[in-house]
Amino acid sequence: MNTPIEFYFDFSSPYGYIAAEKIDALAIKHGRTTDWHPILLGAIFKTTGAQPPAGVPIKGDYFNHDFARSARLFGVTYKQPSIFPISSVAASRAVYWLKDRDAEKSKALVRALYKAFFVEDRDIQNSEVVLDVAEILSIKRDELAAALNDPTVKDRLKNEVQQAMDKGVFGSPYIIIDGEPFFGADRLDQVDKWLATGGW
Amino acid sequence: MNTPIEFYFDFSSPYGYIAAEKIDALAIKHGRTTDWHPILLGAIFKTTGAQPPAGVPIKGDYFNHDFARSARLFGVTYKQPSIFPISSVAASRAVYWLKDRDAEKSKALVRALYKAFFVEDRDIQNSEVVLDVAEILSIKRDELAAALNDPTVKDRLKNEVQQAMDKGVFGSPYIIIDGEPFFGADRLDQVDKWLATGGW
Repeated sequence: MNTPIEFYFDFSSPYGYIAAEKIDALAIKHGRTTDWHPILLGAIFKTTGAQPPAGVPIKGDYFNHDFARSARLFGVTYKQPSIFPISSVAASRAVYWLKDRDAEKSKALVRALYKAFFVEDRDIQNSEVVLDVAEILSIKRDELAAALNDPTVKDRLKNEVQQAMDKGVFGSPYIIIDGEPFFGADRLDQVDKWLATGGW
Repeated sequence: MNTPIEFYFDFSSPYGYIAAEKIDALAIKHGRTTDWHPILLGAIFKTTGAQPPAGVPIKGDYFNHDFARSARLFGVTYKQPSIFPISSVAASRAVYWLKDRDAEKSKALVRALYKAFFVEDRDIQNSEVVLDVAEILSIKRDELAAALNDPTVKDRLKNEVQQAMDKGVFGSPYIIIDGEPFFGADRLDQVDKWLATGGW
C-alpha cells in the first residue's frame, strides 16, 4: 500500500501554482494519490533566513523572467500579479478548513485560488476575494468567513507549517515521495522518473 | 553566426561540477561552442545576501542529500568532500591564466580540478594541490605558481566576477544562451530544449 505523495506549496509561489496544475496527473499516471498542504513561506523563511527570490538583488531579475518562462514550458497560463508577493494566510486557512470536510473539493479550491491570483490578477490575500472564489465552488460564504477567524483553523495552519518544517520543507513546491524530497517545479521530471523507477 | 554558450560555475559547487561534465557535449550536439567562466560565489553572495545552501537550517539537509542524488541522475561520479565548502580563488585564478594561453586546455584543467575535489577529496583551495593537478596536464609548476600571485591575474578574476554579476549571474551553474539565462544543473534539460528550439 503506497502512501500519498505529499505536496507542499505557498499561494504566493508561481512554481507552486505550476506544480498544482501538474501533480495530480503525474500521480494518477503512476497509480498514486496526493495529499496537499498549503504552507506559509514567510514563516519558514524566518528559520532559513531566505528571502522571496523576486525581491533579491540580481536574483530577482532572473526569477521575474523565469516565472512566465516556466509556465510556458509547462503549458500553464500565467500573468504576473500586480500585487506580489502576497500573504497566503487567508487562502491557506480556507483550504485546511475545507480539506477536513472534502479533501478533493479543497484541491479544486486551491486551483481556483491560484487561477484567481496568477491568471485573473485578483488579490487573494484579501479574505473577501477568497470568499468570492470559494462561493463559485458552492462553499457557503458565511461558514467559510467564520472559519477564517476560528482559532482552531488558525492553529491548524500554524501546526501544518511547523510539521512541514519538521519534515524539511523549505520552499514551494516541495514534494515528498515515500520519504524522498524534491524541491522546485523544475524537478517535476525527476518526480516522474522517481515514481516510475523508485529511485536511481 | 552563433555566439558561444556562456557557462559560469564555482569550484565549490557540486552542481557546477555536474554541469562542467555535461555542457560541452550538449553544445556539440547543437553545433555550438562554450565559453567557461569560473566565478566566486562568496563574493556574489555578499550582494545577494545568499548563503551556501549546505549550511542553511532545514535547506542544508536537502542539498547535502541532493548533491549525490543529482550526480547519480547525471551519471557523474561524486564523493562528498570532507572539507566543504571551500574557497575557489586559487583554482579560478589558475583557470583564467591558462584560458588566455589555451582555452581548451583550461577546460581540461577545470574538469581535473573538479575531479580532484569531488571524486578524490583533495583540498583544491590549497595552491599546492592546484599546482599538483595542473602538473599532470603538463602545465609548468613554476609559471603557474607565479601566476597565482600575479596582480594581473588577481585583477582578472575580480573583474570576471564583477562582469558575471553585471550579467545577472547569482549561482552555479549559470548558463546563458544568446542572452537567455538558466540557473541550476536541474535546468540542463531546459538548456537542451532551448538549444534545439530557440525558445518556447
